[in-house]
Amino acid sequence: MKVSVVKNILQANDRIADLNKQLFDEKQILTINVMSSPGAGKTSLIERTIVELKNDYRIGVIEGDIQSTQDAEKIAATEVPVVQINTGGACHLDGNMIRETLGQFNLDEIDLLIVENVGNLVCPAEFRMGEDFKIMLLSVPEGDDKPLKYPLMFHEASVLLINKMDLLPYVSCSPERIRQESLKINPALTIFEISATGDHGLYDWYDWLRQKISIKKMS
Amino acid sequence: MKVSVVKNILQANDRIADLNKQLFDEKQILTINVMSSPGAGKTSLIERTIVELKNDYRIGVIEGDIQSTQDAEKIAATEVPVVQINTGGACHLDGNMIRETLGQFNLDEIDLLIVENVGNLVCPAEFRMGEDFKIMLLSVPEGDDKPLKYPLMFHEASVLLINKMDLLPYVSCSPERIRQESLKINPALTIFEISATGDHGLYDWYDWLRQKISIKKMS
Repeated sequence: MKVSVVKNILQANDRIADLNKQLFDEKQILTINVMSSPGAGKTSLIERTIVELKNDYRIGVIEGDIQSTQDAEKIAATEVPVVQINTGGACHLDGNMIRETLGQFNLDEIDLLIVENVGNLVCPAEFRMGEDFKIMLLSVPEGDDKPLKYPLMFHEASVLLINKMDLLPYVSCSPERIRQESLKINPALTIFEISATGDHGLYDWYDWLRQKISIKKMS
Repeated sequence: MKVSVVKNILQANDRIADLNKQLFDEKQILTINVMSSPGAGKTSLIERTIVELKNDYRIGVIEGDIQSTQDAEKIAATEVPVVQINTGGACHLDGNMIRETLGQFNLDEIDLLIVENVGNLVCPAEFRMGEDFKIMLLSVPEGDDKPLKYPLMFHEASVLLINKMDLLPYVSCSPERIRQESLKINPALTIFEISATGDHGLYDWYDWLRQKISIKKMS
């Protein structure tokens, strides 16, 4: 009984996610769903990415949080349109939450839509929202055993950003082990080692994103 | 409709949690439910705590993970009885999962039962398992904005361990802000600043735990 309820919820979500995807395709908006544990660096990464790309592309942001508008306020300071979703307890964003916010953007004037999911390495991976790519962060203080323990997100992601590389000298973590275990779960995963508060590796990430935006514009 | 399903699940869980609690009380077993984001240091804290206390008390451990037995293997090396629960995708432990494992312990020979929950700062806080105390960890690399963003766990916890204090010089985080924001949500919260891989603050935590075990034995 419980399983069938869950299955129905996921199927209903997939239908709405498909509608979102159609709309994003029609408007040629590249949409990324950024996910990680709490405090792995999603907001910092998004801030840096906006500052780097906003002169070349029109960017919109959806900020997901259980409550509070702290992250949305940080993003608003970058002067791109941002909408906050407060889930009121729910541990992930879903297709319908995204759909409900889209009326607050002028979709004809967006090239890149960045969605910051609720901080959670488990549940957000189960819910599509119509995104082109799922992007996940894992920060080195979290440790190198995470792919084996939380495999679904590593399986679903297109890009893994190994963040906080500047802390590597002070923690027990092997990025090489993260890389190997992640690729066992998902051989197609693109992996960048970065420091979202420094410059380490960010240019490779920006290049990846620029390329995907260009491809979307040509589609 | 969805809300009522969720409410029924929580009520059913509470009934089982109450049964567990009765059993733990009857057997005078102090039970703690250890929760945090992935990689905040739960397993390291539990390992250290066992090594410190195992000569004085009889300890049992339940390890919750989505999959893999890595953490249970680490705990088994401390030579206390440990049972692994693999949730197979579920993002939290619940009362029934705990109930199902209890047959694998000799409850007449346990003073302290430590349950390590799935790494997740959101969902585990919603599900009681019959524990005496919810213990949460927040590690300083996660940042000092977490109480405001994930308030339920801070509200439900009896103890907050601010972990990885050794990394404080290298990250942007104010333990004082964590303390203030946490106490606004939960004025009864006991807070210790620790380093689970060093010695920082651990003796205060051990003392707290010894005291609670003694009280339980006298109940």
